[in-house]
Amino acid sequence: MGILEGKKGIIFGALNDKSIAWKAAEAAVREGASIVLTNTAMAMRFGTVNELAEKCNAPVIVADATNVEDLSNLVEGAMEHFGGKFDFVLHSVGMSPNIRKNVPYEELNYDFLSKTLDISAISFHKLIKVLYAKDALNDAGSIVALTYIAADRTVAGYSDMADAKALLQSITRSFGNIYGRRNGVRINTVSQSPTMTSAGQGIAGMDRMFEYADKLSPLGNADAADCADFLVMLFSDYTRKVTMQNLYHDGGFSSMAASQEIL
Amino acid sequence: MGILEGKKGIIFGALNDKSIAWKAAEAAVREGASIVLTNTAMAMRFGTVNELAEKCNAPVIVADATNVEDLSNLVEGAMEHFGGKFDFVLHSVGMSPNIRKNVPYEELNYDFLSKTLDISAISFHKLIKVLYAKDALNDAGSIVALTYIAADRTVAGYSDMADAKALLQSITRSFGNIYGRRNGVRINTVSQSPTMTSAGQGIAGMDRMFEYADKLSPLGNADAADCADFLVMLFSDYTRKVTMQNLYHDGGFSSMAASQEIL
Amino acid sequence: MGILEGKKGIIFGALNDKSIAWKAAEAAVREGASIVLTNTAMAMRFGTVNELAEKCNAPVIVADATNVEDLSNLVEGAMEHFGGKFDFVLHSVGMSPNIRKNVPYEELNYDFLSKTLDISAISFHKLIKVLYAKDALNDAGSIVALTYIAADRTVAGYSDMADAKALLQSITRSFGNIYGRRNGVRINTVSQSPTMTSAGQGIAGMDRMFEYADKLSPLGNADAADCADFLVMLFSDYTRKVTMQNLYHDGGFSSMAASQEIL
Amino acid sequence: MGILEGKKGIIFGALNDKSIAWKAAEAAVREGASIVLTNTAMAMRFGTVNELAEKCNAPVIVADATNVEDLSNLVEGAMEHFGGKFDFVLHSVGMSPNIRKNVPYEELNYDFLSKTLDISAISFHKLIKVLYAKDALNDAGSIVALTYIAADRTVAGYSDMADAKALLQSITRSFGNIYGRRNGVRINTVSQSPTMTSAGQGIAGMDRMFEYADKLSPLGNADAADCADFLVMLFSDYTRKVTMQNLYHDGGFSSMAASQEIL
Repeated sequence: MGILEGKKGIIFGALNDKSIAWKAAEAAVREGASIVLTNTAMAMRFGTVNELAEKCNAPVIVADATNVEDLSNLVEGAMEHFGGKFDFVLHSVGMSPNIRKNVPYEELNYDFLSKTLDISAISFHKLIKVLYAKDALNDAGSIVALTYIAADRTVAGYSDMADAKALLQSITRSFGNIYGRRNGVRINTVSQSPTMTSAGQGIAGMDRMFEYADKLSPLGNADAADCADFLVMLFSDYTRKVTMQNLYHDGGFSSMAASQEIL
Repeated sequence: MGILEGKKGIIFGALNDKSIAWKAAEAAVREGASIVLTNTAMAMRFGTVNELAEKCNAPVIVADATNVEDLSNLVEGAMEHFGGKFDFVLHSVGMSPNIRKNVPYEELNYDFLSKTLDISAISFHKLIKVLYAKDALNDAGSIVALTYIAADRTVAGYSDMADAKALLQSITRSFGNIYGRRNGVRINTVSQSPTMTSAGQGIAGMDRMFEYADKLSPLGNADAADCADFLVMLFSDYTRKVTMQNLYHDGGFSSMAASQEIL
Repeated sequence: MGILEGKKGIIFGALNDKSIAWKAAEAAVREGASIVLTNTAMAMRFGTVNELAEKCNAPVIVADATNVEDLSNLVEGAMEHFGGKFDFVLHSVGMSPNIRKNVPYEELNYDFLSKTLDISAISFHKLIKVLYAKDALNDAGSIVALTYIAADRTVAGYSDMADAKALLQSITRSFGNIYGRRNGVRINTVSQSPTMTSAGQGIAGMDRMFEYADKLSPLGNADAADCADFLVMLFSDYTRKVTMQNLYHDGGFSSMAASQEIL
Repeated sequence: MGILEGKKGIIFGALNDKSIAWKAAEAAVREGASIVLTNTAMAMRFGTVNELAEKCNAPVIVADATNVEDLSNLVEGAMEHFGGKFDFVLHSVGMSPNIRKNVPYEELNYDFLSKTLDISAISFHKLIKVLYAKDALNDAGSIVALTYIAADRTVAGYSDMADAKALLQSITRSFGNIYGRRNGVRINTVSQSPTMTSAGQGIAGMDRMFEYADKLSPLGNADAADCADFLVMLFSDYTRKVTMQNLYHDGGFSSMAASQEIL
């Protein structure tokens, strides 16, 4: 019997079997949860989400996370599928056109920046606003978003994604205060080690950062499967009183200034 | 002889004699600096900036801080006025249409949110981008923006301004890394006590927060004049090696969890 | 089947059924773990540890946590009982003679302070030193100590216990780096809400702090049973890559500056 | 005219002209302060404090910072010298017998650890206790201690000095709350870049840490003279409302996770 027996949730952002969200979906189902998967129409074409859906016996509801109407349809679709309220949501959504187009941080294109913020951070507010308005989550439900240490300390090359993640972490606190008081719903972020996902690999210098973090972290980098285990634990009843936190799942990286391996 | 003797800088956001920026302008001049003042056309009408300009013997260049062209004109105007590069900039700019229109955080209007972020945070990136592109600052120059603890820990009622300030603090770090390496220019934020400015008074519940913070802080709240002294110190050569920091100027509030006065 | 099936561990500090350690022992056993209990000879007399031992089918090994020889006997006794290495340890040990004798912080007795630090913080180093020297923990084992937010932000009246907890949190990081690299062993602290244990109730003003924290925390205070669930999760394989962290288990208190309920 | 005109203070820990305290003494006098120097009898023999005393026209009062009686004599001697209360104190005191004797952290000698904590952290409490009991500081006086980022994030090889600095930073907050409320006295720590002082050079691997920090910090490492300027600013009236803070004076190191130079 798993730690999510009887729980139901939505998982954003699974693209292929390297995705953290993919591993999280598998882990949630392994632990007894029923899930709904969601991603953009584009991701449906380029990724292999349907394969995951089959494995997990989960419907896929296509949604653009920046579109409130899409999010409404998604939440309604999930409630219909689950026959009522559900318990957890994973937000694993992020993209920076500035990074994609190699615009350096000191020359940011502001239309691109708006998109970075909308996709990677404001989408989280939109999602929670819809969940809150529809009272879609059971009491003590759990909402988690993925973030990265660049939000707190600068990582060269992470550009406006760092700023978007800082905004995401703030939204987590701001809405956590409100949703916690009304329904005991928890909202947290997980600050994950650099991970060799398709998204991660799109960032220039990611390979070197991966190696550096691996050396600086006493436990080495946490991988996608480790992260999935941590996420299901945050969806479970074992963490009912944890909210508004940014939780480092990083092999100790965040608590290191310098290791012998680095020096 | 003052600590800014020979220094030159731009000060954003003075509206009237309650403004932190107003006190900062006076303090900068008292310490020997030459300054240029800037604010929006709207603020020029509603405030008394011209009075300050006269007192400080400073030109006023009208600029909308969200408009890159305006910022370019401002920086060029300042360089012309100063006869070359200058040394410091104070960013004291922020506004939330969501707060103004009493839209609760759980129902944020996203057009308003874009404006909140653009005015209160992205304007800081735009400003620094212009300064950086025009190489407008002397080596070891100093850029400071005003922020508030709500960026780090939730203050009920501060709504999307908290998120904007978190974004502002992240931009500070991200650009601080870049500008520091090229020119030794420092970029920091000052996290100030609740202050009875016109902006502060516009936030519902500000009075109660002011009193609460005053009791929780061992030194009581820092006022606008205290903040001005702290700011000129950050513009000066005494702090040449401080960058990418969020500095609490708050009478100790940020390091308190509970005082006897509160309990 | 529980999340600690097949795991073995030592639990310090259960005194009576209000203790967090008591609840943690029960939760660990509920989740399938075998445990050894330990406390001082004094606590054995004043508390009801034997009752817990019976319930948990666990031996009790008396040890003074400040005495390295006692700790050696304990660890050897546990290894003998378990038939080899084990998996987790909970350190729930703390006491301040200064607080007991009502010595105000500004007049600390330094012999008492040494005892506060030795009992509440250095005991943790001693314990880990023994575990490390005897190679007593399985790979990826988990060591957790209980702490309190006063270590990070001042709580009036918590006196030198705040300093001891800060030292404890530092030892957690310092040793976490070393033990993590050799054996993948994780070391973390849990920063728990004010809890109505016998120890907690011994601190003057605890009642008011309890109420204040309960109001400021969106989820209300976490209680001892909640904490026990969080602790077993940290002992489990779901958190294999989390180390050197101070994890707030506090209903959101640590991420709040001010709530409407407080203002 | 300097920013410490009319101010009086005590400076601990000047050994030779590489010491931060030495530079701080020179800077304080340059800014118009009168000072008293203090160090141990041992340091008087091995260092060149008398040379500094002559330059600064300052008496030297020998004191062991771990000895309350010595500290009482020192504070009384200073009050006599100054003709009454004074304004600032710099605590620059630290030493680890474990590091000196190459005892690795996982094998700490606990008598040595007691000494490390007593010399490097508890001495700060003792000093402030004496100042507070004798009401030796003028209102809004300033007390500063030097610390290092290892207190917050692990630096391999810094051993029990990291723990001592964490304790020091906690004492800063705990006493800051009390002294601030009674007299408006501020207590802060400065977290300085690795610095090539005699103390710094005593730590194995310091050279490599110095280089690493220099590369990771956008402004490069802050040196002893930079630090002295920062310290006099903290003694001055420009920072009257800053208390209980740990201020990073480190060229941006603390806000960096990874730079291109490091990767």
